[in-house]
Amino acid sequence: MHVKIFTTGGTIDKVYFDAKSDYVVGEPQIIEILRQANVTVHYEVETLFRKDSLDLTDADRAVIVERVRHEPARHVLITHGTDTMIETARALRSVPGKTIVLVGSLSPARFKHTDAEFNIGFAMATVQAMPEGVYIAMNGRIFDPERVRKNRAMNRFEPA
Amino acid sequence: MHVKIFTTGGTIDKVYFDAKSDYVVGEPQIIEILRQANVTVHYEVETLFRKDSLDLTDADRAVIVERVRHEPARHVLITHGTDTMIETARALRSVPGKTIVLVGSLSPARFKHTDAEFNIGFAMATVQAMPEGVYIAMNGRIFDPERVRKNRAMNRFEPA
Amino acid sequence: MHVKIFTTGGTIDKVYFDAKSDYVVGEPQIIEILRQANVTVHYEVETLFRKDSLDLTDADRAVIVERVRHEPARHVLITHGTDTMIETARALRSVPGKTIVLVGSLSPARFKHTDAEFNIGFAMATVQAMPEGVYIAMNGRIFDPERVRKNRAMNRFEPA
Amino acid sequence: MHVKIFTTGGTIDKVYFDAKSDYVVGEPQIIEILRQANVTVHYEVETLFRKDSLDLTDADRAVIVERVRHEPARHVLITHGTDTMIETARALRSVPGKTIVLVGSLSPARFKHTDAEFNIGFAMATVQAMPEGVYIAMNGRIFDPERVRKNRAMNRFEPA
Repeated sequence: MHVKIFTTGGTIDKVYFDAKSDYVVGEPQIIEILRQANVTVHYEVETLFRKDSLDLTDADRAVIVERVRHEPARHVLITHGTDTMIETARALRSVPGKTIVLVGSLSPARFKHTDAEFNIGFAMATVQAMPEGVYIAMNGRIFDPERVRKNRAMNRFEPA
Repeated sequence: MHVKIFTTGGTIDKVYFDAKSDYVVGEPQIIEILRQANVTVHYEVETLFRKDSLDLTDADRAVIVERVRHEPARHVLITHGTDTMIETARALRSVPGKTIVLVGSLSPARFKHTDAEFNIGFAMATVQAMPEGVYIAMNGRIFDPERVRKNRAMNRFEPA
Repeated sequence: MHVKIFTTGGTIDKVYFDAKSDYVVGEPQIIEILRQANVTVHYEVETLFRKDSLDLTDADRAVIVERVRHEPARHVLITHGTDTMIETARALRSVPGKTIVLVGSLSPARFKHTDAEFNIGFAMATVQAMPEGVYIAMNGRIFDPERVRKNRAMNRFEPA
Repeated sequence: MHVKIFTTGGTIDKVYFDAKSDYVVGEPQIIEILRQANVTVHYEVETLFRKDSLDLTDADRAVIVERVRHEPARHVLITHGTDTMIETARALRSVPGKTIVLVGSLSPARFKHTDAEFNIGFAMATVQAMPEGVYIAMNGRIFDPERVRKNRAMNRFEPA
């Protein structure tokens, strides 16, 4: 089993700079999370973007799809901002022969209280256990991208 | 989808009491971990034991097997100390018609740096995604209880 | 010994809202920090503002000075954003007969890695131990507001 | 200002080893705490013991007293287990011309929720701000070693 991980940014990687009193998308947090959990399955991490998912353009999305299509690994995990995660997941349905899982977090990984570690763990099992297809792994559930929506008021993913 | 969770103790639930200058098994930490991750899949938590797994007796193990056997839910997750997790997993093979996942952590959930949140996330996906059978979910891998060992020197689970 | 604590906002109280993908000033974090540290000295917390210190106006600063002047307690601690902390400290020199300590943090208290708990501990001792006067308690040092500057490039307070 | 820090062990430095399902006194946590808080006052850390304070012998205590007596720095901070902290503080009254502060924590520094960072911050200000003498810095208060007791039932230091 080999898992290829692409990072694209999003809340999970948000850091805070006092100098600017602002947040920016920083280093991929999944690297430290996998290290801290002593994960021994074979994996490789590659950064594609460091963007809020609202800032991902159609051209960016096309890059993600092409990189996944030409990736030799059959198991692909993508960390992604939650606002357009469903849109990217739907674009990835054109890629055959792979199990593709999108995951993010609703609170930055650097916070004391965050869903980041749980979500990454959840996605790492989903990408190993599920058959070919594209999935969204959020709120402890495995969603079909055709039957999910982000409820912004409740700040969670729900069946749709 | 409904997940039944049994807790039996182990390192994941260890707390520290200064009065005794000692660690003891405390409240099940999975409750707080699932709450913090905003998990919306339906689940129920029940405590069976609060023991180091080295202290679990054959009688205790028989209780675990019987409780799982008579549990109506098809998806069962068990938090368990790592030292005898494999032994309990093998005893559970006699239970038909269920997906049963055992998980623990190598560092207490109350630590700043711990594998607990990742592992619980990993196990929650495993119990939803895998077919009937008994599995050990540790170190980011889904193990068959017949083909795994705990490497005590390296403090991790490995294929055997 | 009784310590009066005024909170005015700043990085220490920053929270993150995914819905807005932005940080805002939230509940005063000093309350939870003092509770977690089992602080038994008598204290009282009152919120004056929830602002980035760059957004504090001259009128706001006059409110702070008047509230401290009319506060019966002799020991006053103020949590404050770091960008204009020195300016507020200098304005408070007109208040006689009190030990007044300003403190903040360079990383939000809700982060896993933050200077918030250390700084609040440092300030709580400073306000109890120092003679009458106004002090800035940052980076493990007790500064005279006349002889300190914030080095923005290094993101720390230094003698000036 | 130069602060000399001696570490002697205690709960603050407790780590957990799953291999033994036991805790031991580990590396001095004050080093990482001071680094994370970006402390810029000049300090030096030296480890004398790594013991539960109940295991410190009269000979160990004599070593602490002699090391402090011959230490050139006027400001000395000692991290120490809480069970015999008062006894060590009283032994140190024979050392003239120094401000000596003893501090520890009731929960290990490696825990998510701990009094360690606050207490170290509190002690670092106490050792800089107080006149010559020996002090215990716990629970947000500066205690005279002659007028303090550890209330084991409440797990806190109180006036006595």
